[in-house]
Amino acid sequence: MNAIQVKFVEKKIAYTGEQLRSHWAYRSFDILGDCAVAFVGPCDVRPEFMKDVEDLKAASRIYSEEMLHFIVEHFSCALDMALLRQRLLMAIMAENLNRKLGAPQVKRAGSDLYDGKFKLTISIASVSPVSALIHAGINISSRNTPVPTRGLADYGIEPRAFAEEILAVYAAECESAWRARCKVRPCE
Amino acid sequence: MNAIQVKFVEKKIAYTGEQLRSHWAYRSFDILGDCAVAFVGPCDVRPEFMKDVEDLKAASRIYSEEMLHFIVEHFSCALDMALLRQRLLMAIMAENLNRKLGAPQVKRAGSDLYDGKFKLTISIASVSPVSALIHAGINISSRNTPVPTRGLADYGIEPRAFAEEILAVYAAECESAWRARCKVRPCE
Amino acid sequence: MNAIQVKFVEKKIAYTGEQLRSHWAYRSFDILGDCAVAFVGPCDVRPEFMKDVEDLKAASRIYSEEMLHFIVEHFSCALDMALLRQRLLMAIMAENLNRKLGAPQVKRAGSDLYDGKFKLTISIASVSPVSALIHAGINISSRNTPVPTRGLADYGIEPRAFAEEILAVYAAECESAWRARCKVRPCE
Amino acid sequence: MNAIQVKFVEKKIAYTGEQLRSHWAYRSFDILGDCAVAFVGPCDVRPEFMKDVEDLKAASRIYSEEMLHFIVEHFSCALDMALLRQRLLMAIMAENLNRKLGAPQVKRAGSDLYDGKFKLTISIASVSPVSALIHAGINISSRNTPVPTRGLADYGIEPRAFAEEILAVYAAECESAWRARCKVRPCE
Amino acid sequence: MNAIQVKFVEKKIAYTGEQLRSHWAYRSFDILGDCAVAFVGPCDVRPEFMKDVEDLKAASRIYSEEMLHFIVEHFSCALDMALLRQRLLMAIMAENLNRKLGAPQVKRAGSDLYDGKFKLTISIASVSPVSALIHAGINISSRNTPVPTRGLADYGIEPRAFAEEILAVYAAECESAWRARCKVRPCE
Amino acid sequence: MNAIQVKFVEKKIAYTGEQLRSHWAYRSFDILGDCAVAFVGPCDVRPEFMKDVEDLKAASRIYSEEMLHFIVEHFSCALDMALLRQRLLMAIMAENLNRKLGAPQVKRAGSDLYDGKFKLTISIASVSPVSALIHAGINISSRNTPVPTRGLADYGIEPRAFAEEILAVYAAECESAWRARCKVRPCE
Repeated sequence: MNAIQVKFVEKKIAYTGEQLRSHWAYRSFDILGDCAVAFVGPCDVRPEFMKDVEDLKAASRIYSEEMLHFIVEHFSCALDMALLRQRLLMAIMAENLNRKLGAPQVKRAGSDLYDGKFKLTISIASVSPVSALIHAGINISSRNTPVPTRGLADYGIEPRAFAEEILAVYAAECESAWRARCKVRPCE
Repeated sequence: MNAIQVKFVEKKIAYTGEQLRSHWAYRSFDILGDCAVAFVGPCDVRPEFMKDVEDLKAASRIYSEEMLHFIVEHFSCALDMALLRQRLLMAIMAENLNRKLGAPQVKRAGSDLYDGKFKLTISIASVSPVSALIHAGINISSRNTPVPTRGLADYGIEPRAFAEEILAVYAAECESAWRARCKVRPCE
Repeated sequence: MNAIQVKFVEKKIAYTGEQLRSHWAYRSFDILGDCAVAFVGPCDVRPEFMKDVEDLKAASRIYSEEMLHFIVEHFSCALDMALLRQRLLMAIMAENLNRKLGAPQVKRAGSDLYDGKFKLTISIASVSPVSALIHAGINISSRNTPVPTRGLADYGIEPRAFAEEILAVYAAECESAWRARCKVRPCE
Repeated sequence: MNAIQVKFVEKKIAYTGEQLRSHWAYRSFDILGDCAVAFVGPCDVRPEFMKDVEDLKAASRIYSEEMLHFIVEHFSCALDMALLRQRLLMAIMAENLNRKLGAPQVKRAGSDLYDGKFKLTISIASVSPVSALIHAGINISSRNTPVPTRGLADYGIEPRAFAEEILAVYAAECESAWRARCKVRPCE
Repeated sequence: MNAIQVKFVEKKIAYTGEQLRSHWAYRSFDILGDCAVAFVGPCDVRPEFMKDVEDLKAASRIYSEEMLHFIVEHFSCALDMALLRQRLLMAIMAENLNRKLGAPQVKRAGSDLYDGKFKLTISIASVSPVSALIHAGINISSRNTPVPTRGLADYGIEPRAFAEEILAVYAAECESAWRARCKVRPCE
Repeated sequence: MNAIQVKFVEKKIAYTGEQLRSHWAYRSFDILGDCAVAFVGPCDVRPEFMKDVEDLKAASRIYSEEMLHFIVEHFSCALDMALLRQRLLMAIMAENLNRKLGAPQVKRAGSDLYDGKFKLTISIASVSPVSALIHAGINISSRNTPVPTRGLADYGIEPRAFAEEILAVYAAECESAWRARCKVRPCE
């Protein structure tokens, strides 16, 4: 019932997948309620925390030397809805990157962003029994990744400023969707 | 439970708002179930069919000489979710337009698309007691609109081909979101 | 997604039941989203606006010379839940009145408040296709009512100050219930 | 779909938090379906069964030498709704206590009851994957509690009779809310 | 939250479709809550009360000289679920008829019952804004129907006794489904 | 959002209850989304995988030398709804068996099938945090079962052909229920 809270965490955090659990933001940063938290750190998702069964079946490695991570938690939000929120978050990132690049270079395909054949992001949306959770990571470094990638460093984009823009736009998107919901009349 | 069906209707239809009702596609084109239908025609929404109470309060005129219209219907879809689907539809349009224009010229702000100060679209998402409904209209002509606008004609974009691309990408988006939903493990 | 907004309206409004519709607060006072609005005025509910089928069947008259009215609107709130919110609102009123009276004189029975055999309130919770709505009215005057009643005037309670206390406590109740919801772990 | 069943268990049970799980009443007392069970016993919640993340973060001790416990289970009831039910249960207890005390001495603040600075209760509402669960405990003894408390013994209230009254009123509250739900017409 | 109530109405009622509205049983027979009511009477559904858009499009006539009608209302039941309940009701009728006929003569196809090429029933499930509603009608007479039909009279089955069996089995089905729901543990 | 996929697995699989978990069909057979999978194998459910608390309390043995098993998974389907789907599946089996037997010999009682005093089936419906799951097993062999049973072999019914019929009818039932849902108008 309260607006989504956002925070960029200055301390680096290694993302292992373990962070994608209910109340992580509340336990770690005392942020209670719907929230989006961003931080920088390497990414190496341990199999027990891989949420996409397709990745598990393929024994994929989800790895990056340095990523900008977003962890989003929405309460009273079903999985179907979390998946749409996730895609809006990715669309917001693509829109922002393309404006920065001055060209429609970054393409969103579902919940992934690509620059030509180069993958920029990883992302998953899931649910705990009490909330919906989204992880989105965008490469900062593109070195040593399991597939060809690009990262914010390749584009000369500073992660923290980018993160804060994305957090602000995502919060505004949630807010404006809610406002739209509250002023629409039903159809027949 | 079935994939979304899409259709471009060749016959021109004047959009009055009356089309935004449950089973319009089924009654008009025998399309049963989740669907997205596009057509070309003028737009002049009668007050009794205006769904945004803000427009009603402001006695806004929703008018365009010629628009490309999309009417989307999803069954078993709540209003909160329809609003997210609507924004994804608008994001898909913006992504497509910018690729066509070769520049990140079109900006999405919530459920509206702008090119600088020019408004390109109108859109609403609502619910009937049995389904969720979305209307999105993008100007073809930008003449005589109540606010400064741009339309597909100003960009040299052919409406039908554009419509068919958007319909296909929107259907693929729905499909891939559903697939992602069906392969994700829960969090703790 | 935003905290509930509250407002005491100074102008007197005659409650006819017509006010219990979606977006009444938005149309009348530009309050968008979850809200609770209070005002003073006579009460005479027209049959077409009676929401309790039991009253309709009994052809009950819902009448008071002067009442303090509360109209509450919650979006994304089902009817079952609106009924619990309504009862909490009535419990809040009873708690406040008893503290003012210095004795546990007012008794809540479901969604009604009584002082012995005297009825203090009327109340209904319902849903529109886009929101949940609650009306609660507490007599100011107890004259000429269809059943024996008591009103705020009989207790020397000033309606506006009382209304503002109730609005504030109800808003805090909604807020704290949401906070509790966001910090609870699931059970097995 | 069946009325809530209530039971006072004569045997003392030490509450450790482990009891707050789905089907506890069914496994222990063969009560199938929505139910509210009360019993007397000490309270010492083990951290692994603490459901309020705030308590976990603060490493709070949830302890009482002797409490009257209520465990409520509702099926097909979401967490948001369980929290409202919990508060109604607490309101019912406060209403009953104040009538017994002949003064509006006990104050409900959200899901807690206070007598001035003295805390009377602990309570939590949560969900299992198949049901909603509420625990409410009211002190009998106020000795050796981590914070200043009052208990039923301080007021000369006999726990079993009190429990049976609360169970009956809570069951009637659920029943009457359901009846109200089934006789209300929708709004526009 | 209460068991479904059933009633066979002795008075004949002409079914026009108008009866398929919320609270019809409460208004007509003072039955409050989930219920199933059966009665005998002719059937001639007026277009404005036809709920199946397919029938409306085809301008079908829904007509029978004499039918046994069932009107079922479930509160807090979504449309998707009402459709499954409807089919269970039809399955119950088919099971009963075949046992009476001593042969698996009657075949259920979705929500319709057939005896070879002869149609026995009509049925629809829908929702009002406050409840789910099912109408099922089984021919007594098979004369003058728009399509080839069979009716209870053709089988020598007495409508009232049949109705009371179906009502009892449907109520038991609802009850046992609820009991099953309340004793099942979740999966991983 | 896609039609339910069905598959008969030729390889024998011993059913232990462990198979009744989310994504089992996707992990085992690469079937993504709503699905129904059938296979032949012995049945011996380990207590940790028993989902019916009544069986657990009674320490029942769920055992058969050879059964035809169905595992059904529905996404975005609540437990209440899964229980109705389960019963429809059992009704479909009974309807099919009786047609094969040429007599209404098999009787469905809730989610169980009986031939007189002989039990033919076991079945459970439950939910994981991301899906609804149904297991239904019908005896092939009736030897050495804990209670008197009959199996497909006693009736001379070939399991695979029977399975494929049931899978096809169940898929058609889901499909037609969805189609009915998408063409029904709301009631008042």
